[in-house]
Amino acid sequence: MRQSELFTKTRKEAPADEVSKNASLLIRAGFIDKLQSGVYTYLPLGFRVLKKIESIILKEMETVGGQEVLMPSLHPKENWTTTGRWDSMDDLYKVTDSSGRENALGGTHEEIVVPLAKQFLSSYKQLPLALFQIQNKFRMELRAKSGILRGREFFMKDLYSFHADEEDLEKYYAQMKISYQNIFQQMGIGSKTYLTFASGGSFSKYSHEFQTVTEAGEDIIFICDACRIAVNKEITETEGEQCPECGNTNLKKEKSIEVGNIFQLKTKFSEPFNLTYKNESGEDIPVSMGCYGIGLGRLMGVVVEALSDEKGIIWPESIAPFKVHLIALGDENSKAHREAFQMQEKLEEKGTEVLFDDRDLRAGEKFADADLLGIPLRVVVSESTLKEGKIEVKRRAEERTSLISFEELVKNV
Amino acid sequence: MRQSELFTKTRKEAPADEVSKNASLLIRAGFIDKLQSGVYTYLPLGFRVLKKIESIILKEMETVGGQEVLMPSLHPKENWTTTGRWDSMDDLYKVTDSSGRENALGGTHEEIVVPLAKQFLSSYKQLPLALFQIQNKFRMELRAKSGILRGREFFMKDLYSFHADEEDLEKYYAQMKISYQNIFQQMGIGSKTYLTFASGGSFSKYSHEFQTVTEAGEDIIFICDACRIAVNKEITETEGEQCPECGNTNLKKEKSIEVGNIFQLKTKFSEPFNLTYKNESGEDIPVSMGCYGIGLGRLMGVVVEALSDEKGIIWPESIAPFKVHLIALGDENSKAHREAFQMQEKLEEKGTEVLFDDRDLRAGEKFADADLLGIPLRVVVSESTLKEGKIEVKRRAEERTSLISFEELVKNV
Repeated sequence: MRQSELFTKTRKEAPADEVSKNASLLIRAGFIDKLQSGVYTYLPLGFRVLKKIESIILKEMETVGGQEVLMPSLHPKENWTTTGRWDSMDDLYKVTDSSGRENALGGTHEEIVVPLAKQFLSSYKQLPLALFQIQNKFRMELRAKSGILRGREFFMKDLYSFHADEEDLEKYYAQMKISYQNIFQQMGIGSKTYLTFASGGSFSKYSHEFQTVTEAGEDIIFICDACRIAVNKEITETEGEQCPECGNTNLKKEKSIEVGNIFQLKTKFSEPFNLTYKNESGEDIPVSMGCYGIGLGRLMGVVVEALSDEKGIIWPESIAPFKVHLIALGDENSKAHREAFQMQEKLEEKGTEVLFDDRDLRAGEKFADADLLGIPLRVVVSESTLKEGKIEVKRRAEERTSLISFEELVKNV
Repeated sequence: MRQSELFTKTRKEAPADEVSKNASLLIRAGFIDKLQSGVYTYLPLGFRVLKKIESIILKEMETVGGQEVLMPSLHPKENWTTTGRWDSMDDLYKVTDSSGRENALGGTHEEIVVPLAKQFLSSYKQLPLALFQIQNKFRMELRAKSGILRGREFFMKDLYSFHADEEDLEKYYAQMKISYQNIFQQMGIGSKTYLTFASGGSFSKYSHEFQTVTEAGEDIIFICDACRIAVNKEITETEGEQCPECGNTNLKKEKSIEVGNIFQLKTKFSEPFNLTYKNESGEDIPVSMGCYGIGLGRLMGVVVEALSDEKGIIWPESIAPFKVHLIALGDENSKAHREAFQMQEKLEEKGTEVLFDDRDLRAGEKFADADLLGIPLRVVVSESTLKEGKIEVKRRAEERTSLISFEELVKNV
């Protein structure tokens, strides 16, 4: 794509009321736009990143046997009174239409997916079952200050699993832990992300969440390097700083952000809706459930928080909006521009996503924009190096530049 | 995919309060579920159809140079008071959060996309520009009776185009007409869908919408066979039954459903937000706009209304959830079942999407389900024909069955 045709331009400043690093950088680079506190538009560059995150998640959900559905956001009040959460969930948006009908705006979908499953589930032969969706959620955050880490409206993958018993739930839950780790690995934050033990609530000794280490984190975790797991602050307050797996008491304290959560719901939601199945003896047994959430925008925000530097964003290749940022030095009649345009065409023919900076700007401005945008490989085409049959390449994450031929570039991308 | 693993089963009856043919069939076949009046969940089969419709639309939007974005549903009240539609739009959902902040739930996005464009648009060099999105819309339909044709929450592609003058808008508008016709053609309703002239409102003599002829239609159109266009009822009432292109007065009256609309907004929305650009002489000129909507669920519903028969749905190949419905006659230990399973694997290896009915049911039940689900090609594997090295194939839209070898099948799909 030609950068001159891109709808967005970079901005010198983020909005004055934007305090988060993730949103400031993403707004300045033209990936997102702030409509109001906690509510953002994904612009063409940001949308490309979002779709790549989605495709990583989709592949993993397929691996764990998830069937994709799409549930609505307008939820009848009755579904929420059945579980008691119409009154108990503080951040639930409520809408009344002009005929007096009351709805919740979905902030999570247990209240919808359980009665849905009830319509089709009857026999043990149908279990286990996993349903998931990727869609927008609404939560009434009154002071949303974390950019796309915690919005009033946000995109989430939520998967709900249904099991004959807790043993089968445990097995699936273990599989989902691995699946989530695969996702973080592919997103370039695997080495900074820890399965973190939290207090178990009403169900089991521990619950689990995934936390990514970053300076901007709102949470604090205590890492066991040997086991590559962590415990959250709450646990250390009651149990001391000790690894629940190996007993190691030499834990490393870090700031972090939650990037995914997995819950063993067991029969918490199947009971109020009376979701049961018939076992082999024909008895009615309550279905055991798990749920597994991951915010797509939050993931994008965490990557920005964890991997950027003072010049801008550093996208991992897997979710970068483009693989190559091709920069021509010279106006559109220059040899560099013409050659760069041909390189764009050849790279795109080979399936490489290229953003071609064909704008009539000074080199310094183009380089600053490239650093801000964070595309993994910068390729500079200038008359001076073209004389030697070379172009200059530089990885966004590294300082070093090198001169190579276009053929070498094609081989490497 | 194995049908035994599919989450949904077919149902004998649709909900008693479901009066529309599209939703009744789609619910019975397990494509959608009704959560409440005008609000539906897309189940795995329906979701597959939705994604195929989306991919047809996406390709066309790329052809017309659309840049994809994703705008939120929570709209600040101020944006809607600026255009006056906070008060004038009857079907606008309004939400107030506990801090008293008022929001509209987006039923359309002019109020968001115009101020967004204003942030980046400044020069004539940036025009024309086209931004689009595919996401859920909310409209307060108090009596939603048309299934997924007209929901309170629904998925829509909306594209907004920005132009230097009306001449450029006209040019783009003409291009979009063709683009929409391409979409309907690929969806299998091209021959039943007409560009329909409607009254122009405040902007121009005529506005245009696309109408698909079907018995269940709520609208009435008058078709000129020679020009392959139509006029709506309102126009015939003021101007008589006459083709606006060729003057033909011998028009054919048909019931129809609107499947897409295109509007020349001109400066209706750029003016209240003061969206202007600088022309070559440095003067500030209001931007001319167009908008182009198409409902994905509505398209699915129209296909069901227009192409089904008394036995069930008939999907066109382009949007069918699977290409082949492979039916084994015999239990899972039978030769037919084993052979069918191998055929599934071979077809899937070749990239053909197969639903394999591996359930332990009578042939009659399987055939009835196949007719209801509407997958284009039914392939029956039974011991009797296998003896002759043949399988039985039947197109859903035809009565005729034929016996062919598996190799011939592979060649033909």
